[in-house]
Amino acid sequence: VSVGPRRALIGVLGGMGPAATIDFLSKIMRATPASSDQEHVPLIVHDVPQIADRSTAILSGSDAPWPGLLAGVQRLERSNVTLIAIPCNAAHFWHERLSRATSVRVAHIADAVRLQIQGRGRRISRLALMAARGTIAADVYGRRLDGLVDELMVPAPAVQDLIERSIRAVKAGAPATALAAEAAERLLHTGADELLLACTELPIAMAGTPSETRCIDPTDALARLCVRASLDESLW
Amino acid sequence: VSVGPRRALIGVLGGMGPAATIDFLSKIMRATPASSDQEHVPLIVHDVPQIADRSTAILSGSDAPWPGLLAGVQRLERSNVTLIAIPCNAAHFWHERLSRATSVRVAHIADAVRLQIQGRGRRISRLALMAARGTIAADVYGRRLDGLVDELMVPAPAVQDLIERSIRAVKAGAPATALAAEAAERLLHTGADELLLACTELPIAMAGTPSETRCIDPTDALARLCVRASLDESLW
Repeated sequence: VSVGPRRALIGVLGGMGPAATIDFLSKIMRATPASSDQEHVPLIVHDVPQIADRSTAILSGSDAPWPGLLAGVQRLERSNVTLIAIPCNAAHFWHERLSRATSVRVAHIADAVRLQIQGRGRRISRLALMAARGTIAADVYGRRLDGLVDELMVPAPAVQDLIERSIRAVKAGAPATALAAEAAERLLHTGADELLLACTELPIAMAGTPSETRCIDPTDALARLCVRASLDESLW
Repeated sequence: VSVGPRRALIGVLGGMGPAATIDFLSKIMRATPASSDQEHVPLIVHDVPQIADRSTAILSGSDAPWPGLLAGVQRLERSNVTLIAIPCNAAHFWHERLSRATSVRVAHIADAVRLQIQGRGRRISRLALMAARGTIAADVYGRRLDGLVDELMVPAPAVQDLIERSIRAVKAGAPATALAAEAAERLLHTGADELLLACTELPIAMAGTPSETRCIDPTDALARLCVRASLDESLW
């Protein structure tokens, strides 16, 4: 029942949050070379936001998000996707366990970032980690950027507070840009060379700000990985 | 495995095209009263653009889109959605047949528009139909707007040509706004009171233009219908 060039079906475990999933789908679309509908990446999107907050659960030692994450992965597996992507950084705390629970390959967002930095061919001296507290605590990026980043800077508490408020504002549909932009400015002032927007709400908040050119966008990196996985038959 | 207020799961038969699906998801999100992820509408999105062009098929008497449409509806049914929405106007040529093929209710985009016009409490004298030729030929809106619209104006060939070019431009990721805006201006000049953007690429092309305030957006009407269906337990 398929028309057009061959494409692998990609599964998206989304809804964390809904705006981040839409941003991710937009980035997949923009990264796809296509002049008609039929050339685009086929996706099954599990866009179910009724999953407990990931960052809060990590910080409190709760496993509340797990059943929802597992149900989503199982539903995508039943849809015969060839790769699963999760546009939520904190959810990668459960990445290894999700990978073991399914026969489908689950992409890791930090591997997508690693590939992108490797593609540039030069190391980053000081990379500031803009993320939810749970993502920082879970060390989602740590060892996956080994050898590519000299220092992964964790924001001071006052800056972290701005970041958390910005993330919550995106989730609430409220103005979030000024909060994220101020956090970014402060991190660049205190010696960061680049900023890792390691919460999928942050690329939305930072869009159009002057510091955007100094940012690495994991949502975009994961989108590009999905496009390659769908279009390049040698990877199937 | 669900957290937060009760919501009905909505199925989206999307990918026709990918930009239209993203626009539809954005409109669902914006129409939902929510201050956290968990309050948003849960969705399963079948975002598979490898379906033959609907307008071309209608005009040539081909049934090529049918197997892909049916496969999508069946997959959504297996995901236990309570309602299926199709953000593609031309695909509604197959609406009745799809409805018969599944036990799940399939919303009709023209019914969503009808509800929206009824909500205003006044008739429209002359409504211009901006749509792909196939949607016009299939009469997707015709009788469903009976009693609410005095005259459904079909564009002259030169204006229709602008509309078709604008639709194709959105699908190709090319500039589409000037084409759609010129078509809209001409229709308003020749006596249309309002414009029905009856191809899901057209609200994208018309966004931000001066004529936008004179437009009825079926994508938005369908999104609002889905939000009501998900949130209002009395409709389950």
